[in-house]
Amino acid sequence: MCLNSKFSFLLFQVFNVAGVPIEWEEHYVGTEVDPRTESFLTWESLESVRRNKVGLKGPMATPIGKGHRSLNLTLRKELGLYANVRPCNSLPGYKTRYDDVNLVTIRENTEGEYSGLEHQVVRGVVESLKIITRQASLRVAEYAFHYAKTNGRERVSAIHKANIMRKTDGLFLKCCREVAEKYPEIAYEEVIIDNCCMALVKNPSLFDVLVMPNLYGDIISDLCAGLIGGLGLTPSCNIGEGGICLAEAVHGSAPDIAGKNLANPTALLLSAVMMLHHLQFNNQADRIHNAILQTISEGKFRTADLGGNASTSDFTKAVCDHI
Amino acid sequence: MCLNSKFSFLLFQVFNVAGVPIEWEEHYVGTEVDPRTESFLTWESLESVRRNKVGLKGPMATPIGKGHRSLNLTLRKELGLYANVRPCNSLPGYKTRYDDVNLVTIRENTEGEYSGLEHQVVRGVVESLKIITRQASLRVAEYAFHYAKTNGRERVSAIHKANIMRKTDGLFLKCCREVAEKYPEIAYEEVIIDNCCMALVKNPSLFDVLVMPNLYGDIISDLCAGLIGGLGLTPSCNIGEGGICLAEAVHGSAPDIAGKNLANPTALLLSAVMMLHHLQFNNQADRIHNAILQTISEGKFRTADLGGNASTSDFTKAVCDHI
Ligand SMILES: CC(C)[C@H](C(=O)O)[C@@H](O)C(=O)O
Ligand SMILES: CC(C)[C@H](C(=O)O)[C@@H](O)C(=O)O
Repeated sequence: MCLNSKFSFLLFQVFNVAGVPIEWEEHYVGTEVDPRTESFLTWESLESVRRNKVGLKGPMATPIGKGHRSLNLTLRKELGLYANVRPCNSLPGYKTRYDDVNLVTIRENTEGEYSGLEHQVVRGVVESLKIITRQASLRVAEYAFHYAKTNGRERVSAIHKANIMRKTDGLFLKCCREVAEKYPEIAYEEVIIDNCCMALVKNPSLFDVLVMPNLYGDIISDLCAGLIGGLGLTPSCNIGEGGICLAEAVHGSAPDIAGKNLANPTALLLSAVMMLHHLQFNNQADRIHNAILQTISEGKFRTADLGGNASTSDFTKAVCDHI
Repeated sequence: MCLNSKFSFLLFQVFNVAGVPIEWEEHYVGTEVDPRTESFLTWESLESVRRNKVGLKGPMATPIGKGHRSLNLTLRKELGLYANVRPCNSLPGYKTRYDDVNLVTIRENTEGEYSGLEHQVVRGVVESLKIITRQASLRVAEYAFHYAKTNGRERVSAIHKANIMRKTDGLFLKCCREVAEKYPEIAYEEVIIDNCCMALVKNPSLFDVLVMPNLYGDIISDLCAGLIGGLGLTPSCNIGEGGICLAEAVHGSAPDIAGKNLANPTALLLSAVMMLHHLQFNNQADRIHNAILQTISEGKFRTADLGGNASTSDFTKAVCDHI
């Protein structure tokens, strides 16, 4: 299932060359509002992900206009995408100020500051509600420790601000501690968010797996992407109810360059690699992954965002050649 | 007024050498709970800041134990410290991954996620309230633009997550826009917090003055401190009702090394410099500031946190010698 990828043609090409036996259902969003979802996301696209339990999502921007739900939030809510997983690794051959980033952020993706509950109390005084539940916190903590264990990771850091939000972030930490007890082989620590951001920019190699409530995950995953070069280079995947795995390129849809064959397909291709691992096509996943790394490392075909002038198809062709 | 500085003796020495004509009232906190403040902060210390309208605060940790209000939060609340100002500049001679940091974070310091309003809705479901008011938002925005104008800064960026928290962060932005209109000579932009963190780690020179609600300020100011070496090197000052200016070293009280003459006094000294500028002792402020920069630049006397083995008094003596 492939949602709205402007690169889908190129993507399928890469998959063909690597011999991935996948049949695709393609869905495009953003043309008109579907009353059943109250958003530009159609009911059929949601059904397709629910049925196949796996999908790959290109960048989507919610068309501007009032009263429509954000496409991304609709997806998360409707599919119960409770954990957003973003591995973040320095790319050999693409130089940034950091060459030692090797961590994974795991973000609770359904509640917290994203509750949507806000109101004006009196004129000039507005409230937003942050909701933390035991159920969602246990679920994402469980996912994080399971991920650490099955991916050869050694430590899970729970990120919080429980020194201020004692009850909400306190509950989140309590759940993480409960789960940590079941994984004695995985080290566990708690890090306050401000301190975590300072430590990340000073020395990202201090971290391994980070698990956190929604907003902190939003902030920290982008910060980490910045360390290795930006959202154009970082894959992501969402784990949902009933074993759904929806891989996605999280960068924006870059309307200024859309359709011009200029975008960097790395984030989408690396997300596709995560999806292939989920499907146990490990061999094909590794081949595509290595081909991407080699292409970036050689540096002959760099898209504009990385300071080059290669087109999307130049880059993709180079990846195919390396497979 | 000097609150709880373990280095006060050394501090006064620096001020003497620079010829700063200040009479000090010293206050120590953390020995016992004062029922009038419900915290370890005494009523007399608060009165002293209120009367003098200016103060310098050393690191303070809230002693562990239940039911006592945090010392820092008590100060902010009782003194109406509505804006926390942290200039963040690369230190010539102290190398980090960044050499081009020159920005100021201005944090709303009284409301937002720090409302203290939290409760359990039902078992396993907890809520925290984030409160944004027009009054506090206008006040901090006004301070930020005024600061930009009087300090030769060119741009103010308002940091937010109004794409999700449309009402609360939306109100904050609305207030910033209103104030921006009164300062046509200062450029104004709005940056989403996740995007801001990514941009800061990629290219901090994109930013000038940043203004934001409480929690984002907490996070981003620490991130920025990390870019130049950490909280041990960054000054801070709080602006309060009635023109109060309380300078402070924001790093922790480092109980492991307290009293051992090992701590780095840079953050406290640079905060003292901010206080001196506030008092219009610009000449003395500049002399102390330059002496600190020279001492760090020479690198002969580095405290343990910067990888050296100088003591607090070695460092301070070197600063005095440079004045
Ligand atoms: C587009 C926006 C609603 C979204 C979020 O805040 O979660 C984005 O920043 C992300 O991280 O996926
Ligand atoms: C100690 C803590 C309560 C405080 C805060 O969260 O504001 C600190 O991180 C700060 O930035 O001054």
